[in-house]
Amino acid sequence: MGKTIAINAGSSTLKFKLFEMPQERVIAQGAVERIGFKTSPVNIRYGVDHQYQETEVVADHLTAVNIILDELIKLRIIDSYDEITGVGHRVVAGGELFHESVLITEPVLEQITALAEYAPLHNPANVVGIRAFKRVLPYVPAVAVFDTSFHTTMPAVNYLYSLPYDYYQQYGARKFGAHGTSHRYVAMRAAELLDRPLTALKLITLHLGAGSSITAIDHGQSLDTSMGFTPLAGITMATRSGDVDPSLIVYLMKKLNINNPDEMLTILNTQSGLLGLAGSADMQELEARCDVDPMAQLAIDIFVNRIVKYVGAYLAELQGADALVMTAGIGERDAKMRQRIADRLGYFGIAIDPAKNQVSGVERDLSTSAATIRTLLIPTDEELMIARDVERVIHE
Amino acid sequence: MGKTIAINAGSSTLKFKLFEMPQERVIAQGAVERIGFKTSPVNIRYGVDHQYQETEVVADHLTAVNIILDELIKLRIIDSYDEITGVGHRVVAGGELFHESVLITEPVLEQITALAEYAPLHNPANVVGIRAFKRVLPYVPAVAVFDTSFHTTMPAVNYLYSLPYDYYQQYGARKFGAHGTSHRYVAMRAAELLDRPLTALKLITLHLGAGSSITAIDHGQSLDTSMGFTPLAGITMATRSGDVDPSLIVYLMKKLNINNPDEMLTILNTQSGLLGLAGSADMQELEARCDVDPMAQLAIDIFVNRIVKYVGAYLAELQGADALVMTAGIGERDAKMRQRIADRLGYFGIAIDPAKNQVSGVERDLSTSAATIRTLLIPTDEELMIARDVERVIHE
Repeated sequence: MGKTIAINAGSSTLKFKLFEMPQERVIAQGAVERIGFKTSPVNIRYGVDHQYQETEVVADHLTAVNIILDELIKLRIIDSYDEITGVGHRVVAGGELFHESVLITEPVLEQITALAEYAPLHNPANVVGIRAFKRVLPYVPAVAVFDTSFHTTMPAVNYLYSLPYDYYQQYGARKFGAHGTSHRYVAMRAAELLDRPLTALKLITLHLGAGSSITAIDHGQSLDTSMGFTPLAGITMATRSGDVDPSLIVYLMKKLNINNPDEMLTILNTQSGLLGLAGSADMQELEARCDVDPMAQLAIDIFVNRIVKYVGAYLAELQGADALVMTAGIGERDAKMRQRIADRLGYFGIAIDPAKNQVSGVERDLSTSAATIRTLLIPTDEELMIARDVERVIHE
Repeated sequence: MGKTIAINAGSSTLKFKLFEMPQERVIAQGAVERIGFKTSPVNIRYGVDHQYQETEVVADHLTAVNIILDELIKLRIIDSYDEITGVGHRVVAGGELFHESVLITEPVLEQITALAEYAPLHNPANVVGIRAFKRVLPYVPAVAVFDTSFHTTMPAVNYLYSLPYDYYQQYGARKFGAHGTSHRYVAMRAAELLDRPLTALKLITLHLGAGSSITAIDHGQSLDTSMGFTPLAGITMATRSGDVDPSLIVYLMKKLNINNPDEMLTILNTQSGLLGLAGSADMQELEARCDVDPMAQLAIDIFVNRIVKYVGAYLAELQGADALVMTAGIGERDAKMRQRIADRLGYFGIAIDPAKNQVSGVERDLSTSAATIRTLLIPTDEELMIARDVERVIHE
């Protein structure tokens, strides 16, 4: 018995969730944000509804780790560092090297560092988080849980682009996908809810948040996913473009006088998607004004349209599906959006009951009795998956 | 009654088909190739099985036009230029300006020239062809028939990318599609074969050739199509990549030390697709060696996979379909490929009869009696569409 902490480190954030394992009880969770800025908000929730909020000066991730662990003691959530028996780190890109979660050793950390090419915004931050925890808790085993590893079962027919083949061999140019931990979690829960073995099911999982991706899961394995070489590809997202004709990138670089391709990439990642179309990256805001703002309505319609097309494509690849699973911010909390998506998929036997759909953030089968493909709402829990993987890897 | 010539001018080619109208009888067809090279093969087929073949020095398109028209007289296919009462020109990009075929005036020609930005390889060649014919036949009405015009019915939800909206307003960054004349022709024929009005049908048309595209046609109108801002996007093609994560373009430019984005575009257009994957752009060649060459098999599988995904996506958008229509080089002549595609779509009620499928280049309903979505083989005839449009526009 011990406590496992699941860590999600971004370039200027450090989020954590502390579990008592193997009971999987959440003891505390929180975040340090705006690390390296002038002031950084620190937030820890614990107990039934206790909350600690403070603004501190947090120069780097190491400081953030120290603050979190110190506060956990000060708040009497833990008595000493020794109670923490495992640390799990979310790592965005595992490339073709990591098919599952692994114990972090120095060579592993070097490999994660080298994989930064595939996730320049994320992997370096993940490495900083890993090193910071390792300095404070040098003897506690740390496990890396990769966003991509669930998708390493994808067959070549889906992970290869139709590019010169040596680009794959020499530069790793292929589809890796992302959100793997989330898709894996909701697929497992879907099997439990449906009371059938995951290995007997065909599922289409819709992770709809600020970043969104859709995965075709065939008998428990990722068959295809909408994100690509990076998390830019696929459906319309809050600020990311999703799929775009590659020619258009070149054309726009000329029109916008952009010489550095990375500049174009920044636009595609941070100024596109819902934000680019309708001036807001926030779906709730768009929902609130879509009746009076045609561009907000159009952005919503485009979001739905891209989802509907991927679901159709994955139904074709899977040759049917047992269930559609909706998760993440929009999937869990936006009942209107769930209804819109299901309404467009009626042809395939997908139908959700408007009454059942009036929920937020709970597990539920939303389907009508007539539906031939079930629609499940399943809140995701990537941190729990991380904590479980830590347990499994440590005790292997 | 008169003769109408349909012209398809490329950068170094000039293809033609001469029709007797309104009977729609093909009197002659042929091509001048390698225009501007040292020697240019000239080929004209006429009558039952007559053929004229010669190698000449053809410096430019004007010379090519003169050679074709002179030979038509020498071969006694026509007695004088006066017999030609209309010229129809295929034009690749019509942007948002041209929703249908139009009489070519000087302002129209200037607009076509300006639209070259959208089709830098094609529109300039089309303009050269138009000017060459106008010099030789100055008083014969000429009509432009645009590859894009059929797709101008696409709704914003499909033609808009999830990019900053002003890129659409300022630079015309949107989906235009291509192969419109072909999709329009086979849709019309499909309605005739099914003996139902086109305006009552949902169709998915698969133009599968060296360039390939798939179109969702809703009650006669293009609803969505797989090609994008340019004909690079969509499914895997002979030498074109189809869809690729835009990030990967940027990553590869760095890896390959490419500073000029146009260089990257050339790779995506000419060295990718089947050629990039398996070393041959020729599907027949890949079919011939796929049993012994795993990469040939993989390239075929990827080609099929991308088609299957688009069909699924368009079934979702259309909420069903009455028929799938296969056309163009591969669609018309590759029975194995048609079978592969249909076999992967059985879930949707698509099924072709292997016996019926043993045909090449003829109109036929290939479906089994149990199929709920019909699969039609319809050879395309863009030149006939062009000739018809010439007639219609001239007599309007």
